[in-house]
Amino acid sequence: MRIALDALGTDEAPLPEIEGALLALATEGEELTVVLVGDRPRLEEELERRGESVPRGRIEIVHAPDRILPGESPASAVRRRPDSSIVTGVRLHRDREVDAFVSAGSTGAMMAASLIFLRPLPGVDRPAIGTLLPTSIGATLMLDGGANVDCKPRHLQQFARLGHIYAQDLMGIERPRIGLLNIGEEPEKGNELSVETHALLSRAAGLHFIGNVEGREIIRGGCDVLVCDGFVGNVLLKFYESVAEFIIELLRKEMDRTGTRFDVKGAFRVLDYAEYGGAPLLGVNGLSVICHGASPPKAIGNAIGVAARAIRSKMVQHIARELARDLPAEA
Amino acid sequence: MRIALDALGTDEAPLPEIEGALLALATEGEELTVVLVGDRPRLEEELERRGESVPRGRIEIVHAPDRILPGESPASAVRRRPDSSIVTGVRLHRDREVDAFVSAGSTGAMMAASLIFLRPLPGVDRPAIGTLLPTSIGATLMLDGGANVDCKPRHLQQFARLGHIYAQDLMGIERPRIGLLNIGEEPEKGNELSVETHALLSRAAGLHFIGNVEGREIIRGGCDVLVCDGFVGNVLLKFYESVAEFIIELLRKEMDRTGTRFDVKGAFRVLDYAEYGGAPLLGVNGLSVICHGASPPKAIGNAIGVAARAIRSKMVQHIARELARDLPAEA
Repeated sequence: MRIALDALGTDEAPLPEIEGALLALATEGEELTVVLVGDRPRLEEELERRGESVPRGRIEIVHAPDRILPGESPASAVRRRPDSSIVTGVRLHRDREVDAFVSAGSTGAMMAASLIFLRPLPGVDRPAIGTLLPTSIGATLMLDGGANVDCKPRHLQQFARLGHIYAQDLMGIERPRIGLLNIGEEPEKGNELSVETHALLSRAAGLHFIGNVEGREIIRGGCDVLVCDGFVGNVLLKFYESVAEFIIELLRKEMDRTGTRFDVKGAFRVLDYAEYGGAPLLGVNGLSVICHGASPPKAIGNAIGVAARAIRSKMVQHIARELARDLPAEA
Repeated sequence: MRIALDALGTDEAPLPEIEGALLALATEGEELTVVLVGDRPRLEEELERRGESVPRGRIEIVHAPDRILPGESPASAVRRRPDSSIVTGVRLHRDREVDAFVSAGSTGAMMAASLIFLRPLPGVDRPAIGTLLPTSIGATLMLDGGANVDCKPRHLQQFARLGHIYAQDLMGIERPRIGLLNIGEEPEKGNELSVETHALLSRAAGLHFIGNVEGREIIRGGCDVLVCDGFVGNVLLKFYESVAEFIIELLRKEMDRTGTRFDVKGAFRVLDYAEYGGAPLLGVNGLSVICHGASPPKAIGNAIGVAARAIRSKMVQHIARELARDLPAEA
């Protein structure tokens, strides 16, 4: 199994990437090879410095010195920068030289490159970012996490199918409970998009649709897969991170004030996104895994782990089969 | 100053209402009279029982024995139940027998009754619920909190004007920073609604529009007034409450495990919605203040306080003047 990793992705690249790759190589077993995509001389130097601790037979380097920056327009950056680490990594995957590509670089560029080079699977209009939210049941998959800001009901139905397979293959849930994010429980509640999507999902074959899920039910584990458009999903995701930070800050202040000692990190480990690794772009013909730009080594290592599990479980093939359900039968 | 209070609003009515009214009467000074709207015999009995602690000269009762239940269709309930506490309270206000009406009953019925009997102000297509979110700057006003799930750019511009006046009159901010909830900072980011609204707000006279505010900037106090549609707003609001509960639960577990003692309530007082009182329906010709259905006495008391401050500052008149800015000039 060969997984390519963007070595020009994080804000601190390539150090978290190298450490993350070493973590994954130590965890995932002998079959894994990591292909670092980035600045070869720098990478050689860093690997050299680490000496014996590096399993050199299982790390390769592909030279791609150019970096797409977060501010750039994704589509034009992908066209204008063929030697960028993102374009190089996605093309390696398209040419099946690697089985997946992981990057903590520009999310927009990862999406654009994946759409252009890997292409959406038949039956998928809009690939979606599948993000895990820490909840009282462990984690809930939310999609779309930000790839598609204006959605139609059929897009949300496709997200439900994508999430259904992710939950089966990567979360080990046989019959995932699919919920539609909404502002009330009743089918007639919500905006036009959610009312129409509720109707579509209610009659979608093969999905265990449990109905609307309100904002307050997400954290309580009201469903395994939460379907929403990418605007709401992205707002929620960023809001969640910052609320957790805010509350922990309040706690630290009170600890300072009262002189209490407390293992804050331990208590809130479940909220640490680094535990969850990356978010795959679901619905393309391949495995593009997107990481947070500030990912520490653990997050990178876990993202490679997500990619490895997706490869082993044949998630992409399962998604292709699932989405074919809604395609018109061939004549 | 006379403020009517729905005494059939909370889940535990009328007890939190009576206690809340007494709190407000003690805090707000002699000019306040509270008019309890509910079941007269029950209310008389409860007031009697409290004896001397009740300033009977400043509490009145209006008999309205009927209660609109949360599950009922708001519009038809308002038509079919003229003797309900909500319809009676809003009509008392329409007839100017009271200066405001506060209720912890059905939000939908409060909105429907307010729209029917008080009417929107000229220039307001859709009144909005103005909700305070606890943030690192104290509180941020978010609107719409759930009254309008499908919005057009001009509705969001009206929300900005409503929020501008609320922040001036009730939060004491001379030049409130108006932010548009979005998934990126750049003007071209977001869905169709947010891109068009950004353009509208950028040229709206008299508003201090600071641009897009991402999910993660809300809690960090990125703006004083956060404008969004009622679908996203309602999801965020409910999500926030439950995230805070979840994190505090994690904390309690860790405390139990380690035997640490800690004043959780004290540390997180800022997150307690009861501190913030009710949310006024902004943009109607009057003051309808909506409270959480599980409001404790403190929340009811603070909601009466919000109504009192709005009356004193002449918020409704100021809103009427502000919204007139966008009306076509008379010929």
